[in-house]
Amino acid sequence: MRFQRPLLFAAFMLGTTLRGQQPNMMPLPAEIKPSEGRLVIDGSFHVGLTGYQEARLQRAADRFLVHLGAETGIPLADHLEGDALESDATKATLVVDCDHAGETVQSVKEDESYALEVGPKQARLTAPDPVGVMRGLATFLQLVDLDSKGFGVPAVAIHDRPRFQWRGLMIDVGRHWMPVDAIERNLDAMELLKLNVFHWHLSDDQGFRVESKVFPKLQEMGSDGHYYSQQQVKDVIAYARDRGIRVIPEFDMPGHSTAWFVGYPELASAPGPYSIERKWGILDACMNPANEKVYEFLDAFIGEMAALFPDEDFHVGGDEVNGVQWKASPEIQAFMQQHGIKSSAALQAYFSARVVGLVEKHGKRTVGWDEVLQPGVPTSVVVQSWRGQKSLAEAARQGYAGILSAGYYLDLMQPASRHYGVDPMEGATAGLTPEEQSRILGGEACLWSEYVTPQIIDAKIWPRMAAIAERLWSPQQTKEVDSMYARLARVSRLLDFVGLEHRSSYPLMLERLTDFKPIDNLRTFDEILEPVKGYSREEMRSYNSSSPLNRLVDATPAESDRAREFAKLVADWSAHKDEIKSELTMWRNDGDDVLPVLQGSALLEEDIPLAQDLAALAAAGLEALEYLESGKPAPQPWVTAQLALVDRTSKPRAELLIMIAKPIGNLIQAAKQ
Amino acid sequence: MRFQRPLLFAAFMLGTTLRGQQPNMMPLPAEIKPSEGRLVIDGSFHVGLTGYQEARLQRAADRFLVHLGAETGIPLADHLEGDALESDATKATLVVDCDHAGETVQSVKEDESYALEVGPKQARLTAPDPVGVMRGLATFLQLVDLDSKGFGVPAVAIHDRPRFQWRGLMIDVGRHWMPVDAIERNLDAMELLKLNVFHWHLSDDQGFRVESKVFPKLQEMGSDGHYYSQQQVKDVIAYARDRGIRVIPEFDMPGHSTAWFVGYPELASAPGPYSIERKWGILDACMNPANEKVYEFLDAFIGEMAALFPDEDFHVGGDEVNGVQWKASPEIQAFMQQHGIKSSAALQAYFSARVVGLVEKHGKRTVGWDEVLQPGVPTSVVVQSWRGQKSLAEAARQGYAGILSAGYYLDLMQPASRHYGVDPMEGATAGLTPEEQSRILGGEACLWSEYVTPQIIDAKIWPRMAAIAERLWSPQQTKEVDSMYARLARVSRLLDFVGLEHRSSYPLMLERLTDFKPIDNLRTFDEILEPVKGYSREEMRSYNSSSPLNRLVDATPAESDRAREFAKLVADWSAHKDEIKSELTMWRNDGDDVLPVLQGSALLEEDIPLAQDLAALAAAGLEALEYLESGKPAPQPWVTAQLALVDRTSKPRAELLIMIAKPIGNLIQAAKQ
Repeated sequence: MRFQRPLLFAAFMLGTTLRGQQPNMMPLPAEIKPSEGRLVIDGSFHVGLTGYQEARLQRAADRFLVHLGAETGIPLADHLEGDALESDATKATLVVDCDHAGETVQSVKEDESYALEVGPKQARLTAPDPVGVMRGLATFLQLVDLDSKGFGVPAVAIHDRPRFQWRGLMIDVGRHWMPVDAIERNLDAMELLKLNVFHWHLSDDQGFRVESKVFPKLQEMGSDGHYYSQQQVKDVIAYARDRGIRVIPEFDMPGHSTAWFVGYPELASAPGPYSIERKWGILDACMNPANEKVYEFLDAFIGEMAALFPDEDFHVGGDEVNGVQWKASPEIQAFMQQHGIKSSAALQAYFSARVVGLVEKHGKRTVGWDEVLQPGVPTSVVVQSWRGQKSLAEAARQGYAGILSAGYYLDLMQPASRHYGVDPMEGATAGLTPEEQSRILGGEACLWSEYVTPQIIDAKIWPRMAAIAERLWSPQQTKEVDSMYARLARVSRLLDFVGLEHRSSYPLMLERLTDFKPIDNLRTFDEILEPVKGYSREEMRSYNSSSPLNRLVDATPAESDRAREFAKLVADWSAHKDEIKSELTMWRNDGDDVLPVLQGSALLEEDIPLAQDLAALAAAGLEALEYLESGKPAPQPWVTAQLALVDRTSKPRAELLIMIAKPIGNLIQAAKQ
Repeated sequence: MRFQRPLLFAAFMLGTTLRGQQPNMMPLPAEIKPSEGRLVIDGSFHVGLTGYQEARLQRAADRFLVHLGAETGIPLADHLEGDALESDATKATLVVDCDHAGETVQSVKEDESYALEVGPKQARLTAPDPVGVMRGLATFLQLVDLDSKGFGVPAVAIHDRPRFQWRGLMIDVGRHWMPVDAIERNLDAMELLKLNVFHWHLSDDQGFRVESKVFPKLQEMGSDGHYYSQQQVKDVIAYARDRGIRVIPEFDMPGHSTAWFVGYPELASAPGPYSIERKWGILDACMNPANEKVYEFLDAFIGEMAALFPDEDFHVGGDEVNGVQWKASPEIQAFMQQHGIKSSAALQAYFSARVVGLVEKHGKRTVGWDEVLQPGVPTSVVVQSWRGQKSLAEAARQGYAGILSAGYYLDLMQPASRHYGVDPMEGATAGLTPEEQSRILGGEACLWSEYVTPQIIDAKIWPRMAAIAERLWSPQQTKEVDSMYARLARVSRLLDFVGLEHRSSYPLMLERLTDFKPIDNLRTFDEILEPVKGYSREEMRSYNSSSPLNRLVDATPAESDRAREFAKLVADWSAHKDEIKSELTMWRNDGDDVLPVLQGSALLEEDIPLAQDLAALAAAGLEALEYLESGKPAPQPWVTAQLALVDRTSKPRAELLIMIAKPIGNLIQAAKQ
């Protein structure tokens, strides 16, 4: 069967429908007013900078021209010094007017607002400070399109400002190491989506990833040689600052700290020696809160890192302490008795309060995970909630500032729509007083990296991260899911042009699985699959840090656009019979055609049952369609048998799910009547 | 029409057929003997280094593990210091045994031979020096495949050495600037193909691309801000040396030198002021050979650059001097009369001899283009021939060493097979004496960059460069074109894993052309197109350094695999009627379906006639097939009309060629009988 690869038409039909109504933009701005005409973008395009000037603005303009040049193929950046930056700024195609300097060290107080007016002859971007300019430039890049006349931007007036001051992405480089270039290309993508906090999870049981000059055995013995030098850290911070992004380091303590103990076993609650952890999960190794030397060590260490990282916030983790080592230690038990500490939670609160004191001593505010919220911990701490709005609301009521991460865990392989539906100000937080609500600073997506390598990190974050970026920037009432997906498809492609590899890595992964044979059948097959959700992978197979992440489940995107579009067709089946039939015919054939590909590869063999099920499901769907077309209800025994098939094939195999099973079930249900 | 994207089956059918006979390797080795069994590659894979040790070898082993890890998805490089490098080298999966150090500065004398024995339990790589080890590691990476048991390498014994000592790639960064990362990823690709000379064309009329500390106005005024700092140059040289690649700088003189004159007009043969040239072509601006100050300048400049670039060879260009400024200058004419110099060619010879003297003074040997070969130029010069074997033979007879570049110009958009057919030792050079032949050092591919940007440079070089690499490394009798293409398809995919963007940039270029709409129809259309060949583009449209390179002709690969495979099917049409019909049906439909895509985009409108012709050609082919199937000869008027169509549609439009026109013509001819 060779004729098998139709267009991905549905996602784009939507896009086209919506294009007249909504701009090519993500996140949507606070206020937008379409106007008449179109600003042409051609080789004469110039940027002019007026008002307040600084080198960072100049670099932002240069970077903007590089990206606009990449997006259009017009060599705008080739002669930067000669042409593209107009000396008489008021004559430029895009006039940038910045009012004053921003903060020396960016914080939640930074003003990110801007106004962008695009007319047929000129565009004008005004912003109070450089970060606002960057936000406006990101908007401009997204508005560019190509029509039958050429590249241009439709005339528009935008007044924009973020809803939340904290819009972050956490990347865990402890469990799997991520090199600087992987971090930097994600910072580029963050800038395009107006995100402003990069939370760098730098230590965990599996690795300590920063050079310490005071305690060099941390990285020398705790990192397998994979750590950032202090110079690299400074470079990343400068790179982020250039993009209006704060860098908040996290050193997780007292748990998740095995990697520290390889070089410094005396910090632990149980005697060493320790080696770098290869397993995943919540482990026993934990710092010793009863040992005064631990605080001396942390004092010096936090002092060194507080000087390296300029941000006002300093994350000390605090999550998932199981207390096993504490309970097993007579010394620690004695310490608790002596100080009237009744539980492990209370002991952690004692530890947290001490650490908060050290962080404050070195001029910083502490951020910690939910668990730090214990009696005795000062309200100066910012709580990062992985538990949900309820614990966030509780923190706000007690006087703590907080950010929401529950609902934004990208590693759980949930669809963009699910993250999009989570709002920091809904649920338990909706009932807070305005003063309490003002303590909720925003949200942060998290990428824990058990199943992430540098090869696939971009695809594990993007494009879904863009939906979270919109949730955190755009007005609360921005909730239209179809519109979000249409704009997400476009911005996902645009992200290619700032250097992300979330789309280009995919065919490579498939080709590796087929020993470089053609991947068309495999791609058609994989297009309707999704990885299992939540924490199911770890229950299905034994994983550790040496496990290859090279199977189909590692290549498969978190979300099947095609299955989602198919479900929509089925929901309105009577208007889409031809498209449904064509899709089902393709899948029925592909289920057979992909088999030889799967059989030839040791890595793909496990997916054979899924292909067989795909063929069976598609055949059942075609039969259902025949009943529907005939106008006669399907016989009950047939319905029962097919629904059993749907039920069986809805279960995961090889850690993958067939996402068209449910819509085919709906088609069968429809055929019953 | 939705069912339209069949497999790229034919190229891979070939691959499969050949796989039993020939290894996955390019270039093919001097000697290869298949053996019994298979070495498994899994997480326990270790490299062990024995014999001579140096840091460069260690880095080569680390890089090998990174690439092997990328190619297999097995985390071999995650714990480099912990696991993957075995301390007891003899127990490693791959034992590397290096005998002694290589040259301090690599030259044509470097021994690049190696032996690789792969058995079912262990592989052993032995080489006299580190560069030989690198060549063997590149071989190992290519031998890896995936079968139903897992990743592995089939047992084999290889004894290998290069046929030519000089196997190069020239990249012109003068006409279009190429940033360091574009250079470095091409050096990675060169290593995988065992190439050993990177010739860096660093100055031309359109740009001077290196920082000079002695004459800073060269880069400050002559580069639009796009130049390499001396530190970046050192980094690239170190990067190349790590990969067994020499870096030879070229500073083109006395012509192609406008960019020098922007800062230093006194070097020119006509008064200034000068500005950076935006036009392409052979221009008048030329250094003044009659001005002694020019030689003083060059003495200091060559001295500075000779210290920066450690290679023994130093390229001074010397091509395409039109003599216009010389003839117009009374001062230069007087100088010629005074010194008995009769022609511009003789004046250039005088200049060349002086420059060769300066280069030698600074301890280097001179390389120059064909034109330097003039009476009076010392035979110590190496001649790079862009004119062909005849001028190369002439040079060798006169005692000059030489390398061949004629036939290896990648920017001319010729198919790999054409470059593959060019041999430095065939044609005029075949008749040389052994001593004369020994002066022919090898060859060098050239990428002149009028139509090249950093976005598309990889696709303009690869995969075709690999065919030239094989020509220059493998034994002369390695000539089987089908085998070359089958192995080329595989190595092209493998190059993705060392970081090349030659394949991943393609869908981006197409999506940009469609304003991010679906590209399936466009891709099917574009798959049978090729850019016009040779220097035709400049005759068809006016180009300069500000021209956007964002049209379909810029995205379209130099070579249509699909059209080549179709031509093969047609050559044996009676055995392939079904495949031919299926291809033609697809194209007939695609010619219609792609029209709305082309009509909506200002950049694609010019391609509409090509799409209409594709539909008409495919329809003619289908009719021809009907005649052939019917067994009745096609009527003459029909044949005449269709051949006229073929003739008309074989002509370029929008700088593109429809590559299936000729095979369809053959099908029509066949239907005549």
